Amino acid sequence: MIMMNVQNIIDRIREIIDDETTTQLREELNSYHVADLADIFQELKPDERLQCFKLLDLEKAADLMEYLPPQMQVELLSDIDENLASQILTQLPHDAAADVLGDMEEDESETYLDKLPHKFSEEVRELLTYNEDTAGGIMNPIVLTVNSDMSVQDVLNHIRIKAEQDNMELYYVYVTDKQNHLLGVVSLRKLLTSPINQKVEDIMISDIVKLHVDDYSDYIIDEFMKYQYNALPVVDLYNRLKGMITWDDVHDLFEEETTEEIYQSSGISTVVVDEDEILTGNVFNAIRARTPWLFITLIGEFIAVNVGNHFDHTLQALPIIAIFMPLLAGLGGNIGTQSITLMVRGLSTGQVTLSSALHHIIRETCIGLVIGTIFGVLVTLVTWGWQHNMELGFIIGIAMTINMTMATIIGTFTPFALKALKTDPAVASGPVIATTIDVVGLAIYFTLVSTYLIKVM
Amino acid sequence: MIMMNVQNIIDRIREIIDDETTTQLREELNSYHVADLADIFQELKPDERLQCFKLLDLEKAADLMEYLPPQMQVELLSDIDENLASQILTQLPHDAAADVLGDMEEDESETYLDKLPHKFSEEVRELLTYNEDTAGGIMNPIVLTVNSDMSVQDVLNHIRIKAEQDNMELYYVYVTDKQNHLLGVVSLRKLLTSPINQKVEDIMISDIVKLHVDDYSDYIIDEFMKYQYNALPVVDLYNRLKGMITWDDVHDLFEEETTEEIYQSSGISTVVVDEDEILTGNVFNAIRARTPWLFITLIGEFIAVNVGNHFDHTLQALPIIAIFMPLLAGLGGNIGTQSITLMVRGLSTGQVTLSSALHHIIRETCIGLVIGTIFGVLVTLVTWGWQHNMELGFIIGIAMTINMTMATIIGTFTPFALKALKTDPAVASGPVIATTIDVVGLAIYFTLVSTYLIKVM
Repeated sequence: MIMMNVQNIIDRIREIIDDETTTQLREELNSYHVADLADIFQELKPDERLQCFKLLDLEKAADLMEYLPPQMQVELLSDIDENLASQILTQLPHDAAADVLGDMEEDESETYLDKLPHKFSEEVRELLTYNEDTAGGIMNPIVLTVNSDMSVQDVLNHIRIKAEQDNMELYYVYVTDKQNHLLGVVSLRKLLTSPINQKVEDIMISDIVKLHVDDYSDYIIDEFMKYQYNALPVVDLYNRLKGMITWDDVHDLFEEETTEEIYQSSGISTVVVDEDEILTGNVFNAIRARTPWLFITLIGEFIAVNVGNHFDHTLQALPIIAIFMPLLAGLGGNIGTQSITLMVRGLSTGQVTLSSALHHIIRETCIGLVIGTIFGVLVTLVTWGWQHNMELGFIIGIAMTINMTMATIIGTFTPFALKALKTDPAVASGPVIATTIDVVGLAIYFTLVSTYLIKVM
Repeated sequence: MIMMNVQNIIDRIREIIDDETTTQLREELNSYHVADLADIFQELKPDERLQCFKLLDLEKAADLMEYLPPQMQVELLSDIDENLASQILTQLPHDAAADVLGDMEEDESETYLDKLPHKFSEEVRELLTYNEDTAGGIMNPIVLTVNSDMSVQDVLNHIRIKAEQDNMELYYVYVTDKQNHLLGVVSLRKLLTSPINQKVEDIMISDIVKLHVDDYSDYIIDEFMKYQYNALPVVDLYNRLKGMITWDDVHDLFEEETTEEIYQSSGISTVVVDEDEILTGNVFNAIRARTPWLFITLIGEFIAVNVGNHFDHTLQALPIIAIFMPLLAGLGGNIGTQSITLMVRGLSTGQVTLSSALHHIIRETCIGLVIGTIFGVLVTLVTWGWQHNMELGFIIGIAMTINMTMATIIGTFTPFALKALKTDPAVASGPVIATTIDVVGLAIYFTLVSTYLIKVM
């Protein structure tokens, strides 16, 4: 395992830039794998980046584009000569070109589209008409198709000519009729191991797993996850083949979806603001994404404050009980978040289903009860020893046990309830649960205190 | 987009089982794609599952194994006839067979290994010697290799014979010398588009991205993510080709790693207990995984309790201030968790790097300050209006602003500090941050109250 030390490379590149030995820099840069170059480019300053980008061979520059984040792609293309930019765009697979152009301002992308070869720009324009979160917006329209009456040898010859010409991705060969309806699929493996003169229709698979141009990215991810193919064909309403989606496209979607899932679980909304914007975009957008759930927390916590206010007299009679509030809320929130995390993730991966809800609720309740009892006993002993007050210790310990058990039940039940209501269980998790547990936990605690402790003392 | 209604299928299968029309059930079951069958099997009861499994064709049964969760694979194999089980195992790719056998008790897997064909069982035994989290434990040892002096035509002929025989996965052809040292790689695409009589050494790529048998899964995932190949070769210390890892293997690893990341962020430890065990294994293991961070929360919250205790007199003088504690802690915890989530996820995807730490800390501080001010003003107004106490409103509002700003700073700074200390930033996030914010927040609040409010009133 050879680890590339990006910082060393950056330092060397900066030295060569200072020495102004362009030939050496050009040679150095073009020797890297584009994936490594992408790492290096991320670390360079914008002006260094531009200088280096101009020194790349055309093909390398085009390859590199696909490994760079969208903003950087647009930035680099806008900063170089327009003709060179058009040349690079033409070298890209159609879906990648459409992605870059889709991220540009409309007038800018129009300028480029007018400069591109007519056929290419028409095809890219069509891609741009699809919603970018659907199969139509993600697919590559260039697919290798053959007729069902061709022989294996015919197909191999066809590939030799076509695949080289169009720089197309090659995992499967799709079989279509004259009107481009999808009839079947043949894997390269099958093609290479079948007798040369066998007909395609005899070796093709006709029960095809396929996507529709309007399928959304979460459905696409699920299909890829489930069937584990390297590529899936995309058809329109009439089963006409429009393109294909490959694993590496889905990989990006998958990473995005995971990020959204993680963001949502801590109350960062990805509905109004794109998840890229939240981390690096302008501060106003980040605030917009983060405020809604904070606001809901605010309302929830004011309810908790009201619960406290309701027990005003208890607090006045025994102010010491206030200092244990964070202890109860903290541990309840923590164990409740654990439960909700387990259920939300389980529902997302399919390890947990609605039909197993009861099993999980019972299991989690047991876990909450056991852990709650352990922590209840601990807290009782510590408080008793510290405050020399057995009754106080017991009340806090009992409140702790009830609180932690309640928290696991609420944390386990809520995701199932949301799922049953056809709502995304990830949405309301963290903040809402923490608040609910604060409210319920405090109510239990204060009731215990005012019922038993105040009377005893 | 055709949605399969699993529940309808299950109902139909149950009806056929009750009717005892085995032929019909056999036909029905064998008509599904194995990925669909896997979904169906997950919903069936164990005895129904076994009954259905026995009706599958041998090849279908073997294919299905790879789509089922490990526990179910072991369960099914243990419950059927040993000879049939051996036959199914022999049909599996080596890595899949090793996975199943590795999940069994040692004496059970030994029984099977003795029953398997000698060559196959030797190869699987070798796989079992590798740590299951390393490339050696994940790879498939059956790889198509060719010599560098073969022509394209030779290779195509070789594939025709070899790939059919060994049921091998085919994405790239690996070029090795007589001692099996890895020299280069040729993609099927390149092979199919190159002249028939060209030598392999002229079309192969020699700058190979490869994995070492001892590389761990997180490194393997990173390499696949970065280079986006469909398969990577695995070599030993001396660059001898030992096997290859494909995208679908990595997909499983990736999902596991994501689950671990999500679990850890809410304080569920995946160090001592496997993440599968936490959700579905025995309750004791689940408790072991969940207690450690809860215990740390307990210690942290007792510190918070101590802070409260320190301001005992303040509380006695003005018990009403206690009821606002959950409000401050809740919102501080919430916004702090948002920051930590953004940084931990960003560090994990590579969107955030240590070198951009300062930028992010400043950006988050601004965001914290803006949001903190908004919420501070809101809280001031609400409290003032509700309690008819302007001073109390202001103190709580100011505490809120300071608290939320502090929380974003702590939440942003901590992951970078952990990363700089070569610790996984995901590990200590949620619970520790929430506790730290409780302690710091309460200290600020009580100090403000005792300094200004008590004097004023």
